[in-house]
Amino acid sequence: MFIAMNRFKIATGSENEFIDIWKKRETYLDNVPGFKEFHLLQGPSHDDYTLFASHSVWESREAFETWTKSEAFRKAHTTAGGAKGIYLGPPQFEGFDEVI
Amino acid sequence: MFIAMNRFKIATGSENEFIDIWKKRETYLDNVPGFKEFHLLQGPSHDDYTLFASHSVWESREAFETWTKSEAFRKAHTTAGGAKGIYLGPPQFEGFDEVI
Repeated sequence: MFIAMNRFKIATGSENEFIDIWKKRETYLDNVPGFKEFHLLQGPSHDDYTLFASHSVWESREAFETWTKSEAFRKAHTTAGGAKGIYLGPPQFEGFDEVI
Repeated sequence: MFIAMNRFKIATGSENEFIDIWKKRETYLDNVPGFKEFHLLQGPSHDDYTLFASHSVWESREAFETWTKSEAFRKAHTTAGGAKGIYLGPPQFEGFDEVI
């Protein structure tokens, strides 16, 4: 199992706008080989931002990396984004391999 | 769904020692109400450390918080730890609520 997470720092007060962007977004993931599950997660709030994370589960790191080079990935990311002012910096990607 | 993660910065070269600690550890989670799944994940490596994360999935934040106050939690954490030198700082807890 491989878990791909992108961490987003969203300016305090812009949480609902960020969630709406994701609710309207088409991820084109359903038929991607090796894809298992996707969730948007809301993490802890700090003084000036709330942490969010996109969280997708894959059968393997290879399946995830193949997807990142695919047309489905390109299509999903042309619609990503939204108002720049809601983001405190760029998203931070972290890939995790199952150890136990 | 609620995901509880603890992020561990493990000194470069100590990765296998850290994994062994977890392999030998008894988590006492199997019969905890609302518990769904546990994994130890290995994340990206940096200059002086490798990121690991414990990753447990729960039916709700309430189920997780009830567990943290339980005897099962206390038992699981009396055996936690290992050699102090392998950790670059304390673990960082982050709880995530499912939004989508």
